[in-house]
Formats: sequence, C-alpha cells, structure tokens
Amino acid sequence: MSTTTTINLKNRPVGTPKLSDFEFITTELQDLKEGEVLLKTTYVSVDPYLRGRMMDAESYIEPFELNKPIVSGCVAEVIESKSSDFSAGDFVTGMMEWKEKQVSNAENLKKVNPNQAPLSTYLGILGMTGLTAYFGLTDIGKPKKGETLLVSGAAGAVGSVVGQIGKLLGMRVVGIAGSDEKIEMITSDYGYDEGINYKTTENMTQAIAEACHNGVDVYYDNVGGEISEAVLYNINKFSRTVVCGAISVYNKTELPKSTSVQPFLIKKSSMMQGFVIFDYKDRHPEGIKQLAEWLQQGKLQYEETIVEGFDNIPQAFLDLFEGKNKGKMLVKI
Amino acid sequence: MSTTTTINLKNRPVGTPKLSDFEFITTELQDLKEGEVLLKTTYVSVDPYLRGRMMDAESYIEPFELNKPIVSGCVAEVIESKSSDFSAGDFVTGMMEWKEKQVSNAENLKKVNPNQAPLSTYLGILGMTGLTAYFGLTDIGKPKKGETLLVSGAAGAVGSVVGQIGKLLGMRVVGIAGSDEKIEMITSDYGYDEGINYKTTENMTQAIAEACHNGVDVYYDNVGGEISEAVLYNINKFSRTVVCGAISVYNKTELPKSTSVQPFLIKKSSMMQGFVIFDYKDRHPEGIKQLAEWLQQGKLQYEETIVEGFDNIPQAFLDLFEGKNKGKMLVKI
Repeated sequence: MSTTTTINLKNRPVGTPKLSDFEFITTELQDLKEGEVLLKTTYVSVDPYLRGRMMDAESYIEPFELNKPIVSGCVAEVIESKSSDFSAGDFVTGMMEWKEKQVSNAENLKKVNPNQAPLSTYLGILGMTGLTAYFGLTDIGKPKKGETLLVSGAAGAVGSVVGQIGKLLGMRVVGIAGSDEKIEMITSDYGYDEGINYKTTENMTQAIAEACHNGVDVYYDNVGGEISEAVLYNINKFSRTVVCGAISVYNKTELPKSTSVQPFLIKKSSMMQGFVIFDYKDRHPEGIKQLAEWLQQGKLQYEETIVEGFDNIPQAFLDLFEGKNKGKMLVKI
Repeated sequence: MSTTTTINLKNRPVGTPKLSDFEFITTELQDLKEGEVLLKTTYVSVDPYLRGRMMDAESYIEPFELNKPIVSGCVAEVIESKSSDFSAGDFVTGMMEWKEKQVSNAENLKKVNPNQAPLSTYLGILGMTGLTAYFGLTDIGKPKKGETLLVSGAAGAVGSVVGQIGKLLGMRVVGIAGSDEKIEMITSDYGYDEGINYKTTENMTQAIAEACHNGVDVYYDNVGGEISEAVLYNINKFSRTVVCGAISVYNKTELPKSTSVQPFLIKKSSMMQGFVIFDYKDRHPEGIKQLAEWLQQGKLQYEETIVEGFDNIPQAFLDLFEGKNKGKMLVKI
C-alpha cells in the first residue's frame, strides 16, 4: 500500500493564520474499491473563505476538523480508475483534500478538457471564481444597464471578473482595492471606470460618493468591515448588495461590530443577500457556458498568481491575506 | 381669515424626545383655492418611524424641517370643499400635518367609509399598519407553510398583525416583546405559538433557539439592535429578514455598532430587505382588500391605544418609546 503527503489543519488559527497552523504528514493510500479513482493533484485553489472554515464550531462557517486534511477546489489527473465514468489520463475538478494523491469515490468530480482551456481556468474564470462572480452579480445584483456597480476586493479573483461582467452588461463600474498598482490594473486591464485605493484614502464615504456620483445601485461585497460601512452611506433607493465575502473579518478573533445596517436598508428600501456558489450547483453549466463564450470572444481578461510546489500551499494561502495575489491564487503541483 | 393650532418640530431630539422638542403655535388658514379642501383632523397616528424623521439631514431618514409642522398619517373630515372629488362631510385619510384644521390640495387623500369600518382602523389594521405587516411579510418574507416566523416588537401595531397573518399562512410564529403582559397578549389574543420577554431573558440567542427549534426562516424585524443580533445566530439557510423598523436605534444619538451581519448572510445564504410601505403604493388596494376580508371573517384581531385630545399628541408619541401602547397608538381629536 503506497503513501502520500497530506496537509492537515494542526491548530485553529487565532487572528492571522501561521505556517505552524498546518502540518505535513504522510498518510496511506487505500486500494481502489469499485467506483473509485486514484487522483494525482495538479492544481490547488487557495481561497479566503477557507479561513472561516478553520475557525471552531462556534463560528459562522462549517469548520474543518483538527488534524484532518484541508479541502478546497482542485484539478487532478486520474491515474487509476475503477469508475465507469473516468479513465486514467482524464483531468477532473472538484473539492479535494490537500494531498499529493488521493482516492475519491468520484461522486462530485467533473471532467475537464485541457485542450479546450488551460486546466487552471477550471478553478478560476471557468470555475468557482467565475461562477461566483457571474451568479452573484446577475442573479442577486439584478444589474440594469446604466446603473452603478461598486465592487470591493476589485482586483481579487472574483472582483476582477465581477467588474468585467458589469461592463459587459452596460453598467458604470467602480472598484475598491488596496494598492495603486491594483487600481491601475482594474482600470486598464479589467475596464473599471474608476478605482479607489482604500489604503491611501482618508474618507472612504466621501471617496465613494465622488466615484459613484449617481450613488451605488449594486454593491458586490468581497470584504465586509469598514469599507462596507462606508458604502452604506452611498447606496441608492432599491439598491442590492451582493454579500460574497468578508475577508476583512475572517482573521478577527471575534466577530467585529460595525454600523447597524438596518436603518440604511429601511431608508433606501435596500436589499442584502449572502450566498455561496454551491447554491447555484444546478445552474453551473449555464454559467460556464456564458463565461466560456465571453472568454472565447476575448471579452473576459483574467489573471492568475500561480505558486509552484505542494509544499508551498500553506504559504500561498497566507499570502492571500497580505493581498499578494493578483487575480486567482493557485498552487501548481 | 381663521386660524388653527399647529404642532411644530421645535428642536431635533437628542436621545429620547422630550415635550420641549415640540411647539404649539397658532397659524393662519388660507382661503380655499380651486381643487382644495378644508380638513378637520379626527385621528392622528403616532409612529416610531417619525423619530427618525426628527433627526438632522445627516441622518438616515428624510428629516422634518425645524419650526415646521410634523406630518403623519391622519383621518380627517372634509368641512369645506372646492374639489370635485370630495364633499363636506366626507372622511378622508392620508399624510397630514399636525394641525386641528388644515387646507389640502386633496391630491393624496383617500375617501374612507365610517360605516364600513371604524375610522380609526383606516390608520391601523386597514391602513399603513396593516399594509406594512401584509406586504412586508408576504412580499419580502415570502413565507411558506410550515416555516418558522420570528417577529420582534410582536405586541406592537405592526407586529401583532404580522403574527396573525403568519398563522393564517400556516407558519409557526414566535414573538419577542418587552413584558409578560405583552407575551400573554400575543399568545392568547394574536395566536402566537410562543413568546419571549427580552427584558427578563438572560441569553436571547439561546431563548430564540429554544422557541424556534427548527431555526428562523423569516424574521420580521421591528426593533434592530441587540435583539436582532441574537437572531443572526438562529437564522436558517435561505432565510429572509424583513427589515421594517429599528425602534431600538431611533433614539440613539449616533448610529450604534452591532455584530457584522455579512458573515451570517454568507453562511446561511440569507437575505435582508428593508422597505417602507410607500414602496407598495400601487398595491395598497390589493392589501386592503385582503385585510378587510380577513377582518370581516373575524380572522384578524387588533388593539388600539387611543389617547384623547390634540394637546396630547406629543406625549402619546413619547409614550411609544416607553412601550406604553398596546397595538396601534392613535390620538382622537
């Protein structure tokens, strides 16, 4: 029976995660049973939402178990198959454990075609990232031509796609990000009409008011916290806030307090809706179809930050909270 | 030219409003122009949301002007008419100034029939109160048979109606209120399945979990603040929060901080929607029809706290924040 390297959650991070919160161990690979496949990991997606799952059960996201492998979206190659659906040499995507190799019951794997698009895109623009941007904006944001879309985390994996879709739908699009370089990127590469560097902005409420001179009709929120507080003062009547992520709070040791949203929602008859992409499981094909079409027409740009080497997965994850990634952060094995 | 007594907003209340924030003055009554009517006020509705409008322009609700009359929902008798739509002796409802008599352009007045239902009900169960309960619950809450509805401010004018409609729609209904007497009232008079007295409850999060043992599917929020924070920990996947009022914050001198809602909305794919009844202006007849039908069938109970005398309007308003009203608070002139 052969073995593989596995990355377990060793400690529940307090505040910002540290490398010592992760543990590399060697685990055995069970022999394949009927219907199972043996997978060799090709790409691992590291995502901010994983931080939430590292918190304990009292927290607000279903937690990972201690001393069990972390799980995230991955692309892998089938190197052995006892499943009628997959053959050796197939590439598949799905939620997988952080292991160099693993046995899977093949139930939630989707075959992907490396000749149709680069394998990494199935974790990004054609994967969870693109679908999160697409369904969040179109289904929850209900964008209308000519409306103003404000996106926080605008240079991130999801945000960079949200802005481009907003432009494709005829919106005025303003992005918030954390460096002048990122602002330059979203305006020149992703077609954002304007950008706000929150790290160099004194008064965010005022800066948003100036950048969104007709107010905010749709706010696609990837960050939460103080930035989202400042947005409240700028939302329009009947505005929609797509609550996609809250990276600003994931590392807080306790849930932070922020300005009560209720009075603003009442005054503006405004809506806030949270979601996770799994809510749209049944509609993924529809989203992938549209995204692939835009991609083929050259209407969607995307950036990837690809780190090499299984051993670097934890560091790549930590780097997310330093904002070191541009676009989708991936680890190539 | 005759005169009338008027109640102006004298000062913008700081914290809890005081009688000295209001001023009784004598103003002139202009002669009627073509299309205008002279109204004699019969009933004045005092509502918590008026507190928000007494704040300054920096606030989150369109403010009343200082040294101008307060405006709220009223019933009045037409005592003179130069409008083709109304004749002397008609009773009308609409937003009116706090005046014993006033001249109106008759544009936003609705005729009401004192023989069909008591005049006071057109400000309550068949008026803004009932419509707020009806459209908030049915249109935003999207209730389903068998789901759990939690209502804060459950003994209030709106809350007492929301709970009854919830029962009529086949929901399990739990109410939060501020005295054992009110809990007794909502469970015996309004059909609430269970009630929680937040003033005598140590741990609201736990109390809500116990009363809503299947979690909260629809939260009809009239109060905001700490009570609504406790609800966050009990919302179900795909739950809906109807943000109707935030009486707990209206008297705060600055917007209070509370637990960030975003992480909960994400985890539970949950929705919060604010509204004001004017959003449903076009659908009011539909709501009144349904409410009147339920009322005639004896399926809706309502309570009114009616104070006598124009001079007592400000005190009646202040009493709202002491929770002295049961059901709809009105002043009869």
